Amino acid sequence: MHENYDLDQLLELVRTKQFRRLRELLDDMNEVDIAEFLDELGPEETILVFRLLPKEVAAEVFTELEDSDDQERLINALSDKELREVLDELYLDDTVDLIEDMPANVVSRILRNTDATTRTQINQLLNYPKDSAGSIMTTEYVYLHPNATVEESFARIRKVGMDKETVYTCYVTQRRVLLGVVTVRRMLLSSYDTRIGDIMETNVLSVNTHEDKEDVAQLLNKYDLYALPVVDGEDRLVGIITFDDAMDVIEEETTEDFEKMAAILPSDKPYLKTGVLETWKARIPWLLLLMLSATFTGIIITSFESALAACVVLTSFIPMLSGTGGNSGSQSSVAVIRALSLDEIDFSDMLLVVWKEIRVAVLCGVCLACANFVKMMIVDRYLMHNPEVTPLVALVVCLTLVFTVICAKVVGCTLPMCAEKIGIDPAVMASPFITTIVDALSLLIYFFIATRLLGLNT
Amino acid sequence: MHENYDLDQLLELVRTKQFRRLRELLDDMNEVDIAEFLDELGPEETILVFRLLPKEVAAEVFTELEDSDDQERLINALSDKELREVLDELYLDDTVDLIEDMPANVVSRILRNTDATTRTQINQLLNYPKDSAGSIMTTEYVYLHPNATVEESFARIRKVGMDKETVYTCYVTQRRVLLGVVTVRRMLLSSYDTRIGDIMETNVLSVNTHEDKEDVAQLLNKYDLYALPVVDGEDRLVGIITFDDAMDVIEEETTEDFEKMAAILPSDKPYLKTGVLETWKARIPWLLLLMLSATFTGIIITSFESALAACVVLTSFIPMLSGTGGNSGSQSSVAVIRALSLDEIDFSDMLLVVWKEIRVAVLCGVCLACANFVKMMIVDRYLMHNPEVTPLVALVVCLTLVFTVICAKVVGCTLPMCAEKIGIDPAVMASPFITTIVDALSLLIYFFIATRLLGLNT
Repeated sequence: MHENYDLDQLLELVRTKQFRRLRELLDDMNEVDIAEFLDELGPEETILVFRLLPKEVAAEVFTELEDSDDQERLINALSDKELREVLDELYLDDTVDLIEDMPANVVSRILRNTDATTRTQINQLLNYPKDSAGSIMTTEYVYLHPNATVEESFARIRKVGMDKETVYTCYVTQRRVLLGVVTVRRMLLSSYDTRIGDIMETNVLSVNTHEDKEDVAQLLNKYDLYALPVVDGEDRLVGIITFDDAMDVIEEETTEDFEKMAAILPSDKPYLKTGVLETWKARIPWLLLLMLSATFTGIIITSFESALAACVVLTSFIPMLSGTGGNSGSQSSVAVIRALSLDEIDFSDMLLVVWKEIRVAVLCGVCLACANFVKMMIVDRYLMHNPEVTPLVALVVCLTLVFTVICAKVVGCTLPMCAEKIGIDPAVMASPFITTIVDALSLLIYFFIATRLLGLNT
Repeated sequence: MHENYDLDQLLELVRTKQFRRLRELLDDMNEVDIAEFLDELGPEETILVFRLLPKEVAAEVFTELEDSDDQERLINALSDKELREVLDELYLDDTVDLIEDMPANVVSRILRNTDATTRTQINQLLNYPKDSAGSIMTTEYVYLHPNATVEESFARIRKVGMDKETVYTCYVTQRRVLLGVVTVRRMLLSSYDTRIGDIMETNVLSVNTHEDKEDVAQLLNKYDLYALPVVDGEDRLVGIITFDDAMDVIEEETTEDFEKMAAILPSDKPYLKTGVLETWKARIPWLLLLMLSATFTGIIITSFESALAACVVLTSFIPMLSGTGGNSGSQSSVAVIRALSLDEIDFSDMLLVVWKEIRVAVLCGVCLACANFVKMMIVDRYLMHNPEVTPLVALVVCLTLVFTVICAKVVGCTLPMCAEKIGIDPAVMASPFITTIVDALSLLIYFFIATRLLGLNT
């Protein structure tokens, strides 16, 4: 029963202009799927097919379109009457999202086609900062009076509920101040003459309009809430945030974290919809910065050039050492970054974290060093017949390994925690950044040990 | 109004044994917060405080405990009667989760203290594979008959709804086959004598018990659903999956992806709750494997040893080249892995993706090469007075840079897509794995260009 639509069949129907049959198929499809189908069509076909949809469906399909360029083209193609119909069906928070993505001329056309009350509400919502709870909330919720009975409240829900994003959690207010919440479930399980004030939950979790939207989304997730009320500075209810918007925020933030951790500037477009130039712009800054900061590793190698020339075999272990150091460091940094973003640890746990990482690092380092010693003796010395790989050289490499892994893990866990403390996103401190630091550290350790143990001059 | 509890005050009350005051404070707290508070207590205090909680609260707090060791200790401390009370209040899917985490003797005690019907249902749920939709579904939902009226259905919800995880989406079945769904909202907005069959939505999205739980969670997220019905091979309704369980699955899978991408074996314990040995076991396998595979880079360097000895300055650019290659490769692999997991692309888009990455790579490569040429001429040659850095050497390094970035980006985008195709998690193909391959590639390109342009012998 898992819904599947046949994209090729739909495209064929568009190509052969069998719109009656197409409309029948579209009737059975979910709005999200219709939007996906529209994404596959050319500009003119999109408009043709969009006009086949019933009003309520059209509005939902419109908000589900992936690409804001498609939305813009559609708006430009629609008559004022058609646009008004779509806008009437949109939830307020979706209209605001739309306005934020559109160029000025389209925005003014949208605002011209909404009624005065909606326009005021839109302007209010637009004033909240980009990442605040206010910017993702909707003002369409059901509020009830504490003195109303369950029966009266059901009547009210019937009357006003049609346009509200959720009716399952209702908010009990008096002079706009939030007193409590009551769920439809609770009402259904109570008798019809119960007063709302007697069954409402007064111990309500709420957030302020200016709180960070990511924190709010995590809160919904942590407490498994369906919706969360948003209040202003005077505890007056101004909106609600529903779980679906929270899930979208979490998905967006996760993508941003992945991007930051791979030294990419965050973008909010899907992979294939991002142009080559845009992708380049998102990737080149960190690549450049990291490349130029590798100057330090170059300087370190240059200053130990004579030592390297005296014992050339040392060079062949540099990539292995910096690779292992980088991997060890990113293991720690990613584990710590994830724990920070899930609120499992904070800055006050720094000592605990470092102590744990040092013990893990010693275990890993010793283990890797032993394996590497055996490998160098068997593979490099005997199988590859490289007489330069003496036990002493192997000892130098293995000691470097132990100290590099310890340094890498300590740097890897402390940097993200310090970043969080001073208000930088810890994800920026992930692998690439740490790798560059660890590269330099591992070389310094390597040459320090090599010059001492092998008696080389720098 | 954002709920804040004062942990220090609570701990102080436990320490000074002021249990009456403590109980008052606990009465006002959310179950999730109480569980967090219990996590901070020692074993005996946990049990003392747990006994202060009212039955319904106790059960919810119990499922919210982070650490399965705490749960085990609690179960062992409770009398059979107390245990039965907690189990009675648990939702079936939570009981199953609990059983999966407990050792055999605790499991048999749990099963002894549940009634026969529940036991049968538990055994059924336990039989679903670990990552299947069946394993995360609950069998506690409300089903309605298509011929019932809205009024009769509300009466039914009142009767059976108390123990159900959600009442807002009801399932319309006949002889257990799923015919459609109807929301409480739809019922509230219809008159009391409407037949359910007339207002139910028949175009229902459902999943099969054996489908992958991650796919199911993504489906709920994609379609913004509150709950999703789960059917067996004969389209009979066997359970539902609610959004809060889906959010947990997504969070878990995201953590796993982060871990895999940092060469850590996935674990399901919070960072600070994982022991040093456990952390070591999760990290050492990939470190070892990646370290040993760096043997190839060693071999490549050894075989070009005489060329390097003739032009020692080349060595100092190796870390920069492999670093830049690694960073370029991980940018592409992470972008592609994320797009794959969000279903933005699949294997059939391979050519599109590769073509895009090649164009981005050429732009990035040329840009980096120019910057690097300028930097080598100004910093290395003039400021650092290194006469070995000739324009020809700079040309060798810059050409290598261009080709390395192109190779890195192509490898970075193709490997995850091939992995997905053959059924391996693409996240495994992230940075560390690709870095190791790109390290070897960049060295080969470097020495190939160096021997040709500088006329060195290998």
